[in-house]
Amino acid sequence: MEYPHSLEFKVRDYECDLQGVVNNAVYQNYLEHARHEYLQAEGINFAEITAKGINLVVVRAELDYRDSLQSNDTFLVKSKLERVSPVRFRFIQDIYRLSDNKLMLQAVITGTSLNQRGRPFVPESLERLFTE
Amino acid sequence: MEYPHSLEFKVRDYECDLQGVVNNAVYQNYLEHARHEYLQAEGINFAEITAKGINLVVVRAELDYRDSLQSNDTFLVKSKLERVSPVRFRFIQDIYRLSDNKLMLQAVITGTSLNQRGRPFVPESLERLFTE
Amino acid sequence: MEYPHSLEFKVRDYECDLQGVVNNAVYQNYLEHARHEYLQAEGINFAEITAKGINLVVVRAELDYRDSLQSNDTFLVKSKLERVSPVRFRFIQDIYRLSDNKLMLQAVITGTSLNQRGRPFVPESLERLFTE
Amino acid sequence: MEYPHSLEFKVRDYECDLQGVVNNAVYQNYLEHARHEYLQAEGINFAEITAKGINLVVVRAELDYRDSLQSNDTFLVKSKLERVSPVRFRFIQDIYRLSDNKLMLQAVITGTSLNQRGRPFVPESLERLFTE
Repeated sequence: MEYPHSLEFKVRDYECDLQGVVNNAVYQNYLEHARHEYLQAEGINFAEITAKGINLVVVRAELDYRDSLQSNDTFLVKSKLERVSPVRFRFIQDIYRLSDNKLMLQAVITGTSLNQRGRPFVPESLERLFTE
Repeated sequence: MEYPHSLEFKVRDYECDLQGVVNNAVYQNYLEHARHEYLQAEGINFAEITAKGINLVVVRAELDYRDSLQSNDTFLVKSKLERVSPVRFRFIQDIYRLSDNKLMLQAVITGTSLNQRGRPFVPESLERLFTE
Repeated sequence: MEYPHSLEFKVRDYECDLQGVVNNAVYQNYLEHARHEYLQAEGINFAEITAKGINLVVVRAELDYRDSLQSNDTFLVKSKLERVSPVRFRFIQDIYRLSDNKLMLQAVITGTSLNQRGRPFVPESLERLFTE
Repeated sequence: MEYPHSLEFKVRDYECDLQGVVNNAVYQNYLEHARHEYLQAEGINFAEITAKGINLVVVRAELDYRDSLQSNDTFLVKSKLERVSPVRFRFIQDIYRLSDNKLMLQAVITGTSLNQRGRPFVPESLERLFTE
């Protein structure tokens, strides 16, 4: 698969839990940061649009855990954005460990964009991402 | 639906993000804590079995975000455990806001149990949960 | 010491790290939640005053780690609020493990209150806390 | 001041809270990661020595919050390690925002090293750090 965006991370020890591996919830942190950096690279600053009353929200997250990241691991979060419907889009996001290029996690994060009254609303800056 | 286990939480402000609502990843924290308390109530202590070399691991997480928890909200995480296959089980977990009993999140967390060599292995204490 | 406020917690497993104990940073989460609940009990809702442009901020945190909380531990965060100067106040916060009443952590958190322009400003609701 | 170690970070949006700035507790995450990377650069791997039964523990943390990091900020955590006594050492850690080199936080983190029985014990690898 072709991923338009890729971001490198290193596991931080506070992200690891009792089992000695990265805690399951932390992968959602990695994925969110990668999505925001992806949007930022496309000219959409998450904090700015939030301040303007546009809320990008996750409506569904599917995560398939293949193997566990551990202390000291470096890895890539690779992301691809697709439109699902007029008001829904999704990020296909996969995590690869750098040492052996092993696929560690596969995720599909479906989102929408809401205006200040909580109604689905796709701002022009986001619309542009799909029409270019 | 009947849920054998229910746990009450209150949103903590550090769990809220820039959007003023509980961050998406934090729901996995809530769900994990509810699962561990559920297991504990059934006589399975997560830290103890981890120390014995038995790793309960999540292989898939599906989360449907219905609405956002906010500062000061109290809520219930209701959980039900089901067997999927000889070595797989899943937790059906739903979150209800207490003020209006609104369903905020629906989750299905599929897991397995691995021994020290990483092989699927269901310890007797867990086996007992499904046979009673 | 007399503490006007006390809040009970239970360690959640995701708060524990590689060393099998609660991670050092997590104690600041506990202390913050206890402070916000303390203020809430005194009629000051943190999210509401933040929305009004009043920012309660920590300027200094001192934490003495006496012993480590572990999985399954329950504990109390006991708090006392004192005025330091016209625009500074501090929370004396101590954590006691419930099983043996052992003092686990001692903290002094010094804060101030800033208005929208970032100037020190003590709102009447907070002022009242010290004059009653 | 001379800092033997410096590490660059970028704020991740999930680290920001209701106030729109990095939550106070998160700075301890940054500081811990910087300390572990510092030790790693000196040949001491935190996860490995933990697995060997040597626990590096924080006994005191002092943090002076000067200004707040925000979404999109990049910053350096600069660290210096000093010996305090035969069994105590401390990290002087300062955080500088990259855009204007502003000092955002000053911290002193005092630690010790414990063996499996909880007794202070400085392993040779750590001892070497102070004698070279």
